Amino acid sequence: MNFNIRDATKEDCKDVLRMIVELALYEKMPDQVKISHEDLERDGFCPNPCFGCLIAEVPEENKSKEGFTTVGYALYFYTYSTRKGRAVHLEDLYVMPEFRGFGIGKGLLSNVAKVTKEKQCALLQLSVLDWNTPSRDFYAARGAQDLTVTEGLHLIRFDEQSLDDLGNDAPKN
Amino acid sequence: MNFNIRDATKEDCKDVLRMIVELALYEKMPDQVKISHEDLERDGFCPNPCFGCLIAEVPEENKSKEGFTTVGYALYFYTYSTRKGRAVHLEDLYVMPEFRGFGIGKGLLSNVAKVTKEKQCALLQLSVLDWNTPSRDFYAARGAQDLTVTEGLHLIRFDEQSLDDLGNDAPKN
Repeated sequence: MNFNIRDATKEDCKDVLRMIVELALYEKMPDQVKISHEDLERDGFCPNPCFGCLIAEVPEENKSKEGFTTVGYALYFYTYSTRKGRAVHLEDLYVMPEFRGFGIGKGLLSNVAKVTKEKQCALLQLSVLDWNTPSRDFYAARGAQDLTVTEGLHLIRFDEQSLDDLGNDAPKN
Repeated sequence: MNFNIRDATKEDCKDVLRMIVELALYEKMPDQVKISHEDLERDGFCPNPCFGCLIAEVPEENKSKEGFTTVGYALYFYTYSTRKGRAVHLEDLYVMPEFRGFGIGKGLLSNVAKVTKEKQCALLQLSVLDWNTPSRDFYAARGAQDLTVTEGLHLIRFDEQSLDDLGNDAPKN
Protein backbone atom coordinates (compact mmCIF):
# COMPACT_ATOMS: atom_id res chain seq x y z
CA MET A 1 0.00 0.00 0.00
CA ASN A 2 1.23 3.50 -0.85
CA PHE A 3 1.57 5.89 2.05
CA ASN A 4 3.06 9.29 2.66
CA ILE A 5 4.73 10.63 5.80
CA ARG A 6 4.79 14.36 6.45
CA ASP A 7 4.91 16.90 9.30
CA ALA A 8 1.55 17.43 10.98
CA THR A 9 -0.20 20.78 10.62
CA LYS A 10 -2.67 22.45 12.97
CA GLU A 11 -5.47 21.04 10.78
CA ASP A 12 -4.38 17.48 11.63
CA CYS A 13 -5.03 17.87 15.38
CA LYS A 14 -8.56 16.42 15.30
CA ASP A 15 -7.21 13.33 13.52
CA VAL A 16 -4.28 13.11 15.95
CA LEU A 17 -6.63 13.31 18.95
CA ARG A 18 -8.85 10.61 17.40
CA MET A 19 -5.80 8.33 17.16
CA ILE A 20 -4.57 9.27 20.67
CA VAL A 21 -7.92 7.99 21.95
CA GLU A 22 -7.64 4.84 19.80
CA LEU A 23 -4.16 4.18 21.22
CA ALA A 24 -5.36 4.74 24.80
CA LEU A 25 -8.19 2.25 24.15
CA TYR A 26 -5.66 -0.28 22.84
CA GLU A 27 -3.56 0.30 25.97
CA LYS A 28 -6.70 -0.19 28.10
CA MET A 29 -6.50 3.32 29.57
CA PRO A 30 -9.16 5.30 27.66
CA ASP A 31 -10.11 7.38 30.74
CA GLN A 32 -6.61 8.86 30.93
CA VAL A 33 -7.04 11.12 27.88
CA LYS A 34 -7.78 14.57 29.29
CA ILE A 35 -6.59 16.75 26.42
CA SER A 36 -8.55 18.24 23.54
CA HIS A 37 -7.61 18.92 19.94
CA GLU A 38 -7.48 22.62 20.92
CA ASP A 39 -4.76 21.76 23.47
CA LEU A 40 -2.78 20.01 20.73
CA GLU A 41 -3.24 22.99 18.40
CA ARG A 42 -2.06 25.44 21.08
CA ASP A 43 0.85 23.34 22.40
CA GLY A 44 2.20 21.98 19.13
CA PHE A 45 1.75 24.89 16.74
CA CYS A 46 3.14 27.95 18.52
CA PRO A 47 6.53 29.74 18.39
CA ASN A 48 8.12 27.28 20.88
CA PRO A 49 6.10 24.10 20.34
CA CYS A 50 6.00 21.46 23.10
CA PHE A 51 6.20 18.62 20.55
CA GLY A 52 6.68 17.65 16.93
CA CYS A 53 4.33 15.32 15.09
CA LEU A 54 4.54 13.25 11.92
CA ILE A 55 1.47 12.01 10.08
CA ALA A 56 1.07 8.93 7.86
CA GLU A 57 -1.60 9.22 5.20
CA VAL A 58 -2.88 6.90 2.49
CA PRO A 59 -4.48 7.78 -0.87
CA GLU A 60 -8.24 8.40 -0.95
CA GLU A 61 -8.85 5.00 -2.62
CA ASN A 62 -7.30 3.24 0.39
CA LYS A 63 -9.20 5.15 3.07
CA SER A 64 -10.31 3.36 6.24
CA LYS A 65 -13.75 1.84 6.76
CA GLU A 66 -14.80 5.07 8.47
CA GLY A 67 -13.38 7.21 5.65
CA PHE A 68 -10.07 8.33 7.22
CA THR A 69 -6.95 8.86 5.10
CA THR A 70 -4.80 9.91 8.09
CA VAL A 71 -3.95 6.49 9.48
CA GLY A 72 -0.94 6.89 11.77
CA TYR A 73 1.13 9.38 13.72
CA ALA A 74 4.36 9.75 15.67
CA LEU A 75 4.50 12.43 18.37
CA TYR A 76 7.89 13.32 19.85
CA PHE A 77 9.67 16.05 21.81
CA TYR A 78 13.20 17.06 22.75
CA THR A 79 14.68 15.98 26.07
CA TYR A 80 18.11 16.14 27.70
CA SER A 81 20.41 13.46 29.01
CA THR A 82 22.99 14.61 31.59
CA ARG A 83 25.22 11.90 30.14
CA LYS A 84 24.77 12.26 26.38
CA GLY A 85 23.23 15.72 25.94
CA ARG A 86 20.29 16.53 23.69
CA ALA A 87 17.91 13.65 23.00
CA VAL A 88 14.44 12.87 21.63
CA HIS A 89 11.54 11.11 23.33
CA LEU A 90 8.99 9.36 21.13
CA GLU A 91 5.78 9.74 23.13
CA ASP A 92 3.44 7.88 20.76
CA LEU A 93 3.83 5.78 17.63
CA TYR A 94 0.51 4.54 16.29
CA VAL A 95 -0.88 2.98 13.12
CA MET A 96 -4.57 2.13 12.80
CA PRO A 97 -5.06 -1.67 13.03
CA GLU A 98 -6.31 -2.12 9.44
CA PHE A 99 -3.18 -0.39 8.10
CA ARG A 100 -0.61 -2.47 9.98
CA GLY A 101 1.82 -4.74 8.14
CA PHE A 102 2.56 -2.29 5.32
CA GLY A 103 5.68 -0.69 6.85
CA ILE A 104 3.91 2.47 8.01
CA GLY A 105 5.07 2.14 11.64
CA LYS A 106 8.63 1.52 10.49
CA GLY A 107 8.37 4.52 8.16
CA LEU A 108 7.22 6.77 11.01
CA LEU A 109 9.96 5.48 13.34
CA SER A 110 12.66 5.92 10.68
CA ASN A 111 11.56 9.48 10.09
CA VAL A 112 11.72 10.26 13.82
CA ALA A 113 15.22 8.72 13.86
CA LYS A 114 16.14 10.99 10.93
CA VAL A 115 14.89 14.07 12.82
CA THR A 116 16.87 12.91 15.88
CA LYS A 117 20.08 12.70 13.84
CA GLU A 118 19.44 15.97 11.98
CA LYS A 119 19.01 17.78 15.31
CA GLN A 120 22.28 16.19 16.51
CA CYS A 121 20.57 14.35 19.33
CA ALA A 122 22.43 11.31 20.64
CA LEU A 123 19.49 9.21 21.84
CA LEU A 124 15.91 8.32 21.00
CA GLN A 125 13.88 7.02 23.92
CA LEU A 126 10.33 5.82 24.40
CA SER A 127 8.31 3.70 26.78
CA VAL A 128 6.22 0.63 26.08
CA LEU A 129 3.90 -1.58 28.17
CA ASP A 130 5.29 -4.99 29.09
CA TRP A 131 2.31 -6.96 27.71
CA ASN A 132 2.62 -5.18 24.36
CA THR A 133 4.99 -7.76 22.89
CA PRO A 134 4.37 -6.77 19.24
CA SER A 135 5.71 -3.28 20.04
CA ARG A 136 8.55 -4.56 22.22
CA ASP A 137 9.61 -6.96 19.45
CA PHE A 138 9.26 -4.21 16.84
CA TYR A 139 11.69 -1.93 18.70
CA ALA A 140 14.08 -4.73 19.69
CA ALA A 141 14.32 -5.91 16.07
CA ARG A 142 15.48 -2.41 15.15
CA GLY A 143 18.31 -2.31 17.67
CA ALA A 144 16.64 -0.73 20.70
CA GLN A 145 17.74 -1.63 24.21
CA ASP A 146 15.14 -2.26 26.95
CA LEU A 147 16.62 -0.25 29.83
CA THR A 148 14.08 -1.60 32.30
CA VAL A 149 15.45 -5.09 31.59
CA THR A 150 19.16 -4.31 31.13
CA GLU A 151 19.65 -1.55 33.72
CA GLY A 152 16.59 -1.97 35.94
CA LEU A 153 15.19 1.47 35.15
CA HIS A 154 11.75 2.27 36.60
CA LEU A 155 9.49 5.10 35.53
CA ILE A 156 8.06 7.14 38.40
CA ARG A 157 5.22 9.65 38.27
CA PHE A 158 3.82 12.35 40.53
CA ASP A 159 0.28 13.29 39.57
CA GLU A 160 -1.58 16.49 40.37
CA GLN A 161 -2.51 15.67 43.98
CA SER A 162 1.00 14.61 45.02
CA LEU A 163 2.42 17.62 43.13
CA ASP A 164 0.20 19.98 45.12
CA ASP A 165 1.36 18.46 48.39
CA LEU A 166 5.01 18.61 47.33
CA GLY A 167 4.91 22.11 45.89
CA ASN A 168 3.34 23.52 49.05
CA ASP A 169 6.32 22.10 50.96
CA ALA A 170 8.91 24.04 48.93
CA PRO A 171 11.32 25.94 51.23
CA LYS A 172 10.82 29.70 51.14
CA ASN A 173 14.06 31.49 50.40
CA MET B 1 22.06 22.66 58.44
CA ASN B 2 21.11 25.85 56.58
CA PHE B 3 20.86 25.58 52.84
CA ASN B 4 19.61 27.70 49.99
CA ILE B 5 17.95 26.61 46.74
CA ARG B 6 18.15 28.84 43.68
CA ASP B 7 18.14 28.68 39.88
CA ALA B 8 21.48 27.65 38.40
CA THR B 9 23.48 30.18 36.38
CA LYS B 10 25.99 29.55 33.61
CA GLU B 11 28.74 29.86 36.25
CA ASP B 12 27.37 26.79 38.07
CA CYS B 13 27.93 24.43 35.12
CA LYS B 14 31.34 23.20 36.29
CA ASP B 15 29.84 22.31 39.68
CA VAL B 16 26.83 20.68 38.00
CA LEU B 17 29.09 18.58 35.77
CA ARG B 18 31.14 17.54 38.82
CA MET B 19 27.95 16.30 40.50
CA ILE B 20 26.68 14.64 37.27
CA VAL B 21 29.90 12.58 37.34
CA GLU B 22 29.45 11.82 41.06
CA LEU B 23 25.88 10.62 40.38
CA ALA B 24 27.02 8.45 37.46
CA LEU B 25 29.68 6.91 39.73
CA TYR B 26 27.01 6.19 42.36
CA GLU B 27 24.87 4.59 39.64
CA LYS B 28 27.91 2.53 38.53
CA MET B 29 27.92 4.03 35.03
CA PRO B 30 30.77 6.59 35.11
CA ASP B 31 31.76 5.88 31.48
CA GLN B 32 28.38 7.07 30.23
CA VAL B 33 29.07 10.76 30.87
CA LYS B 34 30.02 12.20 27.49
CA ILE B 35 29.07 15.85 27.99
CA SER B 36 31.24 18.78 29.09
CA HIS B 37 30.44 21.83 31.19
CA GLU B 38 30.57 23.81 27.92
CA ASP B 39 27.72 21.62 26.60
CA LEU B 40 25.69 22.42 29.72
CA GLU B 41 26.44 26.14 29.34
CA ARG B 42 25.37 26.11 25.69
CA ASP B 43 22.27 23.92 26.10
CA GLY B 44 20.93 25.32 29.36
CA PHE B 45 21.66 29.01 29.06
CA CYS B 46 20.45 30.08 25.62
CA PRO B 47 17.21 31.71 24.38
CA ASN B 48 15.37 28.34 24.24
CA PRO B 49 17.14 26.28 26.90
CA CYS B 50 16.99 22.46 26.75
CA PHE B 51 16.63 22.21 30.54
CA GLY B 52 16.21 24.07 33.80
CA CYS B 53 18.44 23.50 36.81
CA LEU B 54 18.16 24.23 40.54
CA ILE B 55 21.18 24.39 42.81
CA ALA B 56 21.42 23.69 46.54
CA GLU B 57 24.18 25.53 48.36
CA VAL B 58 25.37 25.66 51.95
CA PRO B 59 27.12 28.51 53.80
CA GLU B 60 30.92 28.74 53.54
CA GLU B 61 31.31 27.41 57.12
CA ASN B 62 29.56 24.17 56.14
CA LYS B 63 31.51 23.56 52.93
CA SER B 64 32.40 19.98 51.93
CA LYS B 65 35.70 18.25 52.71
CA GLU B 66 36.93 19.32 49.26
CA GLY B 67 35.77 22.90 49.76
CA PHE B 68 32.50 22.88 47.77
CA THR B 69 29.49 24.96 48.83
CA THR B 70 27.34 23.80 45.88
CA VAL B 71 26.19 20.44 47.22
CA GLY B 72 23.16 19.36 45.21
CA TYR B 73 21.22 19.95 42.01
CA ALA B 74 17.97 19.10 40.26
CA LEU B 75 17.94 19.16 36.46
CA TYR B 76 14.59 19.03 34.68
CA PHE B 77 12.95 19.75 31.33
CA TYR B 78 9.48 20.08 29.84
CA THR B 79 7.83 17.12 28.15
CA TYR B 80 4.39 16.35 26.76
CA SER B 81 1.85 13.69 27.60
CA THR B 82 -0.71 12.93 24.89
CA ARG B 83 -3.10 12.16 27.74
CA LYS B 84 -2.51 15.00 30.20
CA GLY B 85 -0.70 17.66 28.16
CA ARG B 86 2.37 19.58 29.31
CA ALA B 87 4.54 17.81 31.87
CA VAL B 88 7.97 17.94 33.51
CA HIS B 89 10.69 15.29 33.58
CA LEU B 90 13.16 15.37 36.47
CA GLU B 91 16.33 14.02 34.86
CA ASP B 92 18.60 14.17 37.93
CA LEU B 93 18.14 14.87 41.62
CA TYR B 94 21.40 14.66 43.53
CA VAL B 95 22.75 15.64 46.94
CA MET B 96 26.40 14.98 47.88
CA PRO B 97 26.58 12.06 50.37
CA GLU B 98 27.91 14.13 53.30
CA PHE B 99 24.95 16.53 52.97
CA ARG B 100 22.18 13.94 52.99
CA GLY B 101 19.65 13.77 55.81
CA PHE B 102 19.18 17.53 56.11
CA GLY B 103 16.14 17.84 53.81
CA ILE B 104 18.09 19.17 50.84
CA GLY B 105 16.81 16.49 48.43
CA LYS B 106 13.25 17.12 49.57
CA GLY B 107 13.80 20.86 49.18
CA LEU B 108 15.02 20.41 45.59
CA LEU B 109 12.14 18.07 44.73
CA SER B 110 9.55 20.42 46.27
CA ASN B 111 10.93 23.31 44.25
CA VAL B 112 10.73 21.29 41.02
CA ALA B 113 7.11 20.41 41.95
CA LYS B 114 6.46 24.14 42.45
CA VAL B 115 7.87 24.95 39.01
CA THR B 116 5.73 22.13 37.54
CA LYS B 117 2.57 23.65 39.04
CA GLU B 118 3.50 27.22 38.16
CA LYS B 119 3.97 26.19 34.52
CA GLN B 120 0.56 24.46 34.65
CA CYS B 121 2.04 21.05 33.95
CA ALA B 122 -0.08 18.10 35.05
CA LEU B 123 2.66 15.56 35.74
CA LEU B 124 6.19 15.24 37.07
CA GLN B 125 8.04 12.13 35.93
CA LEU B 126 11.47 10.68 36.52
CA SER B 127 13.26 7.35 36.34
CA VAL B 128 15.13 5.48 39.02
CA LEU B 129 17.22 2.28 39.13
CA ASP B 130 15.56 -0.72 40.79
CA TRP B 131 18.43 -1.37 43.24
CA ASN B 132 18.34 2.25 44.40
CA THR B 133 15.83 1.59 47.18
CA PRO B 134 16.63 4.78 49.15
CA SER B 135 15.53 6.83 46.11
CA ARG B 136 12.54 4.60 45.35
CA ASP B 137 11.38 4.90 48.97
CA PHE B 138 12.02 8.65 48.95
CA TYR B 139 9.71 9.18 45.96
CA ALA B 140 7.09 6.65 47.11
CA ALA B 141 6.87 8.34 50.53
CA ARG B 142 6.00 11.57 48.75
CA GLY B 143 3.12 10.10 46.77
CA ALA B 144 4.81 9.01 43.53
CA GLN B 145 3.53 6.01 41.61
CA ASP B 146 5.99 3.48 40.16
CA LEU B 147 4.58 3.02 36.65
CA THR B 148 6.95 0.16 35.88
CA VAL B 149 5.35 -1.76 38.76
CA THR B 150 1.71 -0.61 38.44
CA GLU B 151 1.35 -0.39 34.66
CA GLY B 152 4.31 -2.45 33.44
CA LEU B 153 5.98 0.46 31.66
CA HIS B 154 9.42 -0.24 30.17
CA LEU B 155 11.92 2.37 29.04
CA ILE B 156 13.41 1.73 25.59
CA ARG B 157 16.45 3.41 24.04
CA PHE B 158 17.96 3.67 20.58
CA ASP B 159 21.59 4.75 20.73
CA GLU B 160 23.65 6.33 17.97
CA GLN B 161 24.40 3.17 15.97
CA SER B 162 20.80 1.97 15.86
CA LEU B 163 19.66 5.53 15.09
CA ASP B 164 21.99 5.68 12.09
CA ASP B 165 20.62 2.41 10.75
CA LEU B 166 17.02 3.51 11.30
CA GLY B 167 17.44 7.02 9.90
CA ASN B 168 19.01 5.70 6.71
CA ASP B 169 15.87 3.60 6.22
CA ALA B 170 13.50 6.60 6.24
CA PRO B 171 11.15 6.55 3.21
CA LYS B 172 11.93 9.26 0.68
CA ASN B 173 8.86 11.34 -0.14
